[in-house]
Amino acid sequence: MNLLVVGTVAFDALETPFGKTDKILGGAATYIGLSASYYLKKSNLVSVVGDDFPQEHIDLLNKRGMNTEGLQIKKGEKTFFWSGKYHTDMNTRDTIETQLNVLETFDPIVPENYKDVDFLMLGNLMPSVQQRVLDQLPKRPKLVVLDTMNFWMDHFLDDLMDSLKNVDVLTINDEEARQLSGEYSLVKAAKKILAMGPKYLIIKKGEHGALLFNNNEVFFAPALPLEDVFDPTGAGDTFAGGFIGYLASTGNISFDNMKRAVIHGSAMASFCVEKFGTERMLDLSDAEVQSRLQAFKDLVQVEFDLA
Amino acid sequence: MNLLVVGTVAFDALETPFGKTDKILGGAATYIGLSASYYLKKSNLVSVVGDDFPQEHIDLLNKRGMNTEGLQIKKGEKTFFWSGKYHTDMNTRDTIETQLNVLETFDPIVPENYKDVDFLMLGNLMPSVQQRVLDQLPKRPKLVVLDTMNFWMDHFLDDLMDSLKNVDVLTINDEEARQLSGEYSLVKAAKKILAMGPKYLIIKKGEHGALLFNNNEVFFAPALPLEDVFDPTGAGDTFAGGFIGYLASTGNISFDNMKRAVIHGSAMASFCVEKFGTERMLDLSDAEVQSRLQAFKDLVQVEFDLA
Repeated sequence: MNLLVVGTVAFDALETPFGKTDKILGGAATYIGLSASYYLKKSNLVSVVGDDFPQEHIDLLNKRGMNTEGLQIKKGEKTFFWSGKYHTDMNTRDTIETQLNVLETFDPIVPENYKDVDFLMLGNLMPSVQQRVLDQLPKRPKLVVLDTMNFWMDHFLDDLMDSLKNVDVLTINDEEARQLSGEYSLVKAAKKILAMGPKYLIIKKGEHGALLFNNNEVFFAPALPLEDVFDPTGAGDTFAGGFIGYLASTGNISFDNMKRAVIHGSAMASFCVEKFGTERMLDLSDAEVQSRLQAFKDLVQVEFDLA
Repeated sequence: MNLLVVGTVAFDALETPFGKTDKILGGAATYIGLSASYYLKKSNLVSVVGDDFPQEHIDLLNKRGMNTEGLQIKKGEKTFFWSGKYHTDMNTRDTIETQLNVLETFDPIVPENYKDVDFLMLGNLMPSVQQRVLDQLPKRPKLVVLDTMNFWMDHFLDDLMDSLKNVDVLTINDEEARQLSGEYSLVKAAKKILAMGPKYLIIKKGEHGALLFNNNEVFFAPALPLEDVFDPTGAGDTFAGGFIGYLASTGNISFDNMKRAVIHGSAMASFCVEKFGTERMLDLSDAEVQSRLQAFKDLVQVEFDLA
């Protein structure tokens, strides 16, 4: 089934304990689309860049099957830029600079031939911009997944709460789940958040794995213990791309299939952090992906007969 | 097979966001023994208390099958006392007071009829005291599990390194694994620590689960997401007690059985934190234990066919 990815396409400059980069390709939609490309031959992208954005990056997205007809290129404007520095533990980072540039006035336009959407991934953006996408679709997609962050909870909570009524799956991290719900316990947080609208909630805990909740069940997928985490940038988006890419490729949105999708997302994210930026996500082989999935399976595998 | 538990029996005074206690029964060996009692009808205890320690606590240990012949009661001395206060996140705590009392001069004496040990659990104590126990055993136990903490790494590292050569399983938390190895990555940390002597390493991550390593494999057991964590005191010792209790009850020390043992330990720990101190561990029913194990199984259960 088809997939529409909406989100940022950006330049990132990164510094981790292992090195630093100049402006490289980044952005939520980039990571989501690259990750989903291991499940779907084609996807549709809605995003915005400035005319400083090099054609070679667009070629790269196209090469991974992303239709960039919905990528607006703003003449005389500059692409969204973020630079950040990770601490030694890789779980915390400082933002050094954020230049919104083209994002300041981003009005997402869904091209006509995109509009029959089966699976919609709304990457982290201002909630009203995410809602603008939903408003353009003549029929509701089979599944809408929305990612957001604490900044929107701080400054645009009402808009976010409105959007939450229209989504199936919300993906946030543990601190954001606590902030949104006012509950420290993630189990209690999940109950409150599911009452806000989403039918499913994924709480991303980074190196500590991810939790998938619906109203009756909870599933936990570990993160793979890795020798080295080079650069966590994009891991959450890569997770989301693997999650929705797998679901769209199977067309099955049962809770059981979402469990599998969470493992696929986790596997994709475990690749993403092995190199800087998008580098590791550009040409994974089938064998690498299968072997990684097997590692995830083995990690929690145990024969267990209960009395 | 038989189990010898060596460790502290203590008074704790606890404060959590949910309330506070006066001096209540605590200590590593207490939690280990109570937890193991769900797997073994009998266990042997070596520890020390002062004559301020009430008979009713000893009766309680006996009632749960713990042989207290090896519990030294020091006339005119006082029992080890610890008081601490947990922060809102329950993952960090401040020690308010530590009175070593009888622990200052503790010389563990293993009674003659304890000496034929199959499974030995060396709870957190000064490394030289742990070693003194091993030195008294005429034959090596089938399995030796040692728990320790950062304090001994800071002040008695040489003694700890000596003891590590003689143990099969080391249990420590993630920060301690990083400190002992000098590696941030837990995978790298595990490799270095396994080279110090232990054949198996368990890294406890509290609410984020536990990792079991040998030289070739890694297994991850999640913690159960709980609505409320009332008091984390003793959770690590309760985990260890369930782990070694299960192994001793089955007599099987294969890596596969250790995986199951880690789940049992995690299940026991998930009960421990539901009430203050040892309260929840005093009379769990079989049905409660089985249902909790099922919840752990369900938490990561997914049908997954790889291509």
